[in-house]
Amino acid sequence: MRIALAYSGGLDTTVLCRWLKENYRAEVITVTVDVGQPTDFRAIEERAYAAGASKHYHVDARSRFVEEFVARDILFNGLYEGEYPLSTALSRYPIAEEVARIALMEGCDAVAHGCTGKGNDQLRMDASLSYFLPDDVRILAPVREQNWSRDWEIDYAIKRGLPIEVKESRFSIDENIWGRSVEGAELEDPWTGPPWDVFKWIKPPSEWPNEPEEIVIRFESGLPVALDGRRMSLWEIISELNVRLGRYGFGLIDHIEDRVIGLKSREVYEAPAALALIRCHQDLEKMVLPARCLKFKAHVDREWTELVYAGLWYHPLREALDRFADELEKNVSGEVKLTLEKGSARISGRRAEKSLYVKDLITYSAESLFDQRHSDGFSRIWSLDVRLQKIMRGPSAR
Amino acid sequence: MRIALAYSGGLDTTVLCRWLKENYRAEVITVTVDVGQPTDFRAIEERAYAAGASKHYHVDARSRFVEEFVARDILFNGLYEGEYPLSTALSRYPIAEEVARIALMEGCDAVAHGCTGKGNDQLRMDASLSYFLPDDVRILAPVREQNWSRDWEIDYAIKRGLPIEVKESRFSIDENIWGRSVEGAELEDPWTGPPWDVFKWIKPPSEWPNEPEEIVIRFESGLPVALDGRRMSLWEIISELNVRLGRYGFGLIDHIEDRVIGLKSREVYEAPAALALIRCHQDLEKMVLPARCLKFKAHVDREWTELVYAGLWYHPLREALDRFADELEKNVSGEVKLTLEKGSARISGRRAEKSLYVKDLITYSAESLFDQRHSDGFSRIWSLDVRLQKIMRGPSAR
Amino acid sequence: MRIALAYSGGLDTTVLCRWLKENYRAEVITVTVDVGQPTDFRAIEERAYAAGASKHYHVDARSRFVEEFVARDILFNGLYEGEYPLSTALSRYPIAEEVARIALMEGCDAVAHGCTGKGNDQLRMDASLSYFLPDDVRILAPVREQNWSRDWEIDYAIKRGLPIEVKESRFSIDENIWGRSVEGAELEDPWTGPPWDVFKWIKPPSEWPNEPEEIVIRFESGLPVALDGRRMSLWEIISELNVRLGRYGFGLIDHIEDRVIGLKSREVYEAPAALALIRCHQDLEKMVLPARCLKFKAHVDREWTELVYAGLWYHPLREALDRFADELEKNVSGEVKLTLEKGSARISGRRAEKSLYVKDLITYSAESLFDQRHSDGFSRIWSLDVRLQKIMRGPSAR
Amino acid sequence: MRIALAYSGGLDTTVLCRWLKENYRAEVITVTVDVGQPTDFRAIEERAYAAGASKHYHVDARSRFVEEFVARDILFNGLYEGEYPLSTALSRYPIAEEVARIALMEGCDAVAHGCTGKGNDQLRMDASLSYFLPDDVRILAPVREQNWSRDWEIDYAIKRGLPIEVKESRFSIDENIWGRSVEGAELEDPWTGPPWDVFKWIKPPSEWPNEPEEIVIRFESGLPVALDGRRMSLWEIISELNVRLGRYGFGLIDHIEDRVIGLKSREVYEAPAALALIRCHQDLEKMVLPARCLKFKAHVDREWTELVYAGLWYHPLREALDRFADELEKNVSGEVKLTLEKGSARISGRRAEKSLYVKDLITYSAESLFDQRHSDGFSRIWSLDVRLQKIMRGPSAR
Repeated sequence: MRIALAYSGGLDTTVLCRWLKENYRAEVITVTVDVGQPTDFRAIEERAYAAGASKHYHVDARSRFVEEFVARDILFNGLYEGEYPLSTALSRYPIAEEVARIALMEGCDAVAHGCTGKGNDQLRMDASLSYFLPDDVRILAPVREQNWSRDWEIDYAIKRGLPIEVKESRFSIDENIWGRSVEGAELEDPWTGPPWDVFKWIKPPSEWPNEPEEIVIRFESGLPVALDGRRMSLWEIISELNVRLGRYGFGLIDHIEDRVIGLKSREVYEAPAALALIRCHQDLEKMVLPARCLKFKAHVDREWTELVYAGLWYHPLREALDRFADELEKNVSGEVKLTLEKGSARISGRRAEKSLYVKDLITYSAESLFDQRHSDGFSRIWSLDVRLQKIMRGPSAR
Repeated sequence: MRIALAYSGGLDTTVLCRWLKENYRAEVITVTVDVGQPTDFRAIEERAYAAGASKHYHVDARSRFVEEFVARDILFNGLYEGEYPLSTALSRYPIAEEVARIALMEGCDAVAHGCTGKGNDQLRMDASLSYFLPDDVRILAPVREQNWSRDWEIDYAIKRGLPIEVKESRFSIDENIWGRSVEGAELEDPWTGPPWDVFKWIKPPSEWPNEPEEIVIRFESGLPVALDGRRMSLWEIISELNVRLGRYGFGLIDHIEDRVIGLKSREVYEAPAALALIRCHQDLEKMVLPARCLKFKAHVDREWTELVYAGLWYHPLREALDRFADELEKNVSGEVKLTLEKGSARISGRRAEKSLYVKDLITYSAESLFDQRHSDGFSRIWSLDVRLQKIMRGPSAR
Repeated sequence: MRIALAYSGGLDTTVLCRWLKENYRAEVITVTVDVGQPTDFRAIEERAYAAGASKHYHVDARSRFVEEFVARDILFNGLYEGEYPLSTALSRYPIAEEVARIALMEGCDAVAHGCTGKGNDQLRMDASLSYFLPDDVRILAPVREQNWSRDWEIDYAIKRGLPIEVKESRFSIDENIWGRSVEGAELEDPWTGPPWDVFKWIKPPSEWPNEPEEIVIRFESGLPVALDGRRMSLWEIISELNVRLGRYGFGLIDHIEDRVIGLKSREVYEAPAALALIRCHQDLEKMVLPARCLKFKAHVDREWTELVYAGLWYHPLREALDRFADELEKNVSGEVKLTLEKGSARISGRRAEKSLYVKDLITYSAESLFDQRHSDGFSRIWSLDVRLQKIMRGPSAR
Repeated sequence: MRIALAYSGGLDTTVLCRWLKENYRAEVITVTVDVGQPTDFRAIEERAYAAGASKHYHVDARSRFVEEFVARDILFNGLYEGEYPLSTALSRYPIAEEVARIALMEGCDAVAHGCTGKGNDQLRMDASLSYFLPDDVRILAPVREQNWSRDWEIDYAIKRGLPIEVKESRFSIDENIWGRSVEGAELEDPWTGPPWDVFKWIKPPSEWPNEPEEIVIRFESGLPVALDGRRMSLWEIISELNVRLGRYGFGLIDHIEDRVIGLKSREVYEAPAALALIRCHQDLEKMVLPARCLKFKAHVDREWTELVYAGLWYHPLREALDRFADELEKNVSGEVKLTLEKGSARISGRRAEKSLYVKDLITYSAESLFDQRHSDGFSRIWSLDVRLQKIMRGPSAR
């Protein structure tokens, strides 16, 4: 039996590698997908072989992760429950795709992942793997099926002499270029705020610069293409913004999140670039799209965000939503200005080639497109519901 | 003819007072409603008489403004287009009610307001006045009907020797306890950020305290009832938060807004208490309401917010939405902690009596209510759409 | 061990009764709840004892089924996917409540139901039973857990000599006063229409009367209270309408339905009264509720319908939706006229005490509330988006 | 001055033709657009000249009306308020386009239409004409602006000796291939049903055939392409269905409709083909689209329908919705079977190439894609909200 294992190098998947080999007498092929996590991939490879892998793959998916997945999150203003920019969620799709691709290439009988049964990642991995693999390739999730506990895993690793990493942190961290999530330890108490040292990009107040800074982000057809006039790849823009915004303490997310399975969890993220790009994109959309478009796109955005959060990237609905956004975003080109001051980042200006903000229209003096005398009729018709209600209510009212 | 005039004391309504008197040969009764604007009401009264009023009313609506209107904005997380806490919008309803009440009491033939035809206030005043007044009391809006310009108004005032206020500010400002809106001058260019001196509560970066501060806000049934353990009226809570949050530079809003009539305008507001109370309320709701409730309440919140923005407070739909929220907010009781640091305000903790965040459920160890082994079945069924899609796609795919 | 079993008297639950007794060495208490199914309850009781029950309960829940559950379906226009009036779905709640009540009264260790794992009823029974029972009372669903097939069940029944009913019909039927569902046999082919003899109330074309008939249904606060001027209970109204409408062939539903678990099934129902009462109720709402209320209530209706279909009657969201509807339905009082003619039933008239249809307003002659000259301004402002789009497009367009 | 007039040949536009000529001393160019109304176009031309037109255009827009406009109504299941298939609404767009095209070609200074200020057509004509015409071409709507009454118009026509048609009908009728609307006379009383003789396609009960009939409609990518196996153009399909369905009395619509301006009106339509094609299209979608797609498309459908009803065809939102539907409808290919019996038409079968209805899945016997044992876990997780609610409620419940 041959099993392709989505391998992160952490405790779960290292234990899993050995357990699969022993339990299924299987040949285990480990696959590590690079989506921008800051890992020593050579060490991971060594650990995989030490844990019993018969073959190891390292796949660089950084570019496609940003171009195919993260870019769409910007177009759809994808913040789950208004807060979470889907950083971990989005990364699961290219990981599943690459693991499935290698499983097919290597003729595997099964694929395995280390997701527990309490989170969302299991749904993302199961659905995506099953989309790419024929039905006769099994999907194994032993951590969930065996109901493994962390203690059991550590015990297993020690007994087998597995090379598990000595954790520097008491937190459980997932990282890629689009964001970092931090879980565990004291953060399980939602009344306790996160300590500053869990963050990588975000600096503590003592280090916030006194001098302000401005950043101008240029968007074309809804996507960022330049910073301060310098054309850059999306990867470069995100990387630079994470650092520049983090210096001013910007990018912290701390909220109670509803997982698909119905549990509420306290989630702490840092995502300076993601938050800034989405907020700026939304701001620019307001310059360019009529109110009806904004209002309906908000529905579309939420639907897209929920699909992607819930593991359903390969759902036909997502593709149809994509076509909607592609059409509407054509004109979303322009610049947004961020002003950074100490621990504050705010949008202080925006301009767009196809702006619908027509200065003449609101100066309360000149008229051309809009004659305020038309508003009299508009207002009378607008109030009809309320006036009819007065009649219904009868003369005795109030 | 007797006309009741909603009188703010500004240029528009002062010119209007005289013009109504002259044009209709009318007795003009001026009504100034206090909703927390920082005005010298004695000076306003004098100005009204100087402009030709035959009688002047000053109505203190501060308490009912906060209790009946602002409180509902908190329950419904009322931020129009995600940004504007409806401060001016909400105030128009008690103003219209009081003007209508006095018009009826005084047996007026008409009421008048100074709204232009380019904004939203005309819709709020027209609909609300017409709701409270019989059809034979006319509603006059001469600024809109006559298409008056600012220059024409100034000229008229000078010619008649009207006591118009020498403006200290080049901006047009509307203020009440729930927020201040700033318009005009360089802000008409959406690329130009607002200068710090337009703000009253919000301090500039040079004055932001270096030492952090924590504020604990207690909510009961969705409404704030205490700060840092001290029980206070909603009026007191808002007043204190405007000052304490403003010191840290919090509460600035700068966005492109879609008016009901279809125009886009650049709006700058300051609303420290409003933003903080709504954000904290939303955060607490996430502890207490199941995801389905949160998701549907988000629809309800948007609908309520649009109704109120659009002048339709007295619409039967608003009352039905109220009943929905009253039921759902029963359990929204608990505390939210704000951490303030140099230009930054963030929610760093929350706790609730009826919290649905059950720590045991997510520790990835114990189980009681939730057994992760059930997730296997859940995940397989969850992915059915995607798996069927694979079949539809046929064997040749990807 | 004591087990309370929701007992219908059919094959599934008869086999289940014996199997539970044997497998758990349990005392089985059978509970049959009357929601208007046309059953010989004495025969059912005998069969229960023959199958090994140690005690049998017969509960008459007809009245509360109609008053507490069916009535709400009318208020919310509850047609799942626009077609299915939730007849079976609604009945599961009082059944689960009564079974749970008896289980508590009898001190049972477990409750059992006969739902399979492919339908929706399992979700309704599991959620509702678990809402009313403490966690230490187990919920058993052996048909699902053991993956029983029909053949296996028949074999088991024959071997044990269980008194299973000799089916008159090749179809599987669930019936109560609000509707009948028909499944199985040739109906599994969605290209094959249902034969007339599967219906009870609905007559075939050969029996449709040649002479027309009119029915006037009176609603008060959204609920039917009289037929043709005769005040009747809701139970009586539904009973009479099923017969009178069925004579004209009205009430057939045939569609592809999406079950909660993701499967599509072909469903055939007959529900003459349900369809007519919901359609008439909707028609009357259009006379009384402003367009904004209708539009938002349509959202609310769909959410309520999906909750109830999906087994979540005891969800806090449902109660909040109830408060919304109670407020809005206050004025939904009036009459709707149905005209029946050979296979056709259509609404041909409606009138309401608080009608918003003001005849004067639309005669295109007189004016009072509405002056058509105001429409000029309205129309110009209404078209602003389209006119701005022309400008954006530039002079070269089309 | 030159004015292009959208000319129907009825009283309104005939009076208008002369009035424009007299009032503006204008050269009036009449434009009649054929969208399938059963008119004697030669007589119309003569009447135009008699009324003073200096030039007359007759434009055959039948083909593009059906291909560009009606076809989209099928894709979006466009029934306004669940009832009205937008027949008149859709026709206004090609009419406005053609009038604008000729106005540009003829170098007109203005265009005119005969819409009143109480209906929706004014919004459709104003917005569409203004989209195609430069700002310096005025749009005139004298019926609305002058607040003409029917009596005044008749009087004017008699005085000027205008050749107005002697009405055969006391009703006001608008007709095209997609439907007929009937207004006026006794129909203004919503309690009075329509008399049979107002209908053209729909036959009265006395003429309904006794023998049943079946119609099989084939759709490809969401659009009808064949009847009973015969490939036909959409125009031919609609024409044939209007007659065949009308024979069985099918296609009558009678409801209270909310106009954009806030008035409620009683509307009676006949639209056999429109109703049948939309219902069949919806039925087929249920075979092919997953539940999530159906649910979200229902939102999209409503939005599209409201835009088109409200005169906003040339809104950028409509184009984005189009892209969404184009993507989703790709697989909506198959056949739907209608069974006609006396006054009844019902869908009795459907089949699709890419059907998601997998018979094996629901036979309650075999399993492959779906194992009902997975439902146990699904059901437990599904009920979590309700179980948590039990805990919140405390032990004292119910």
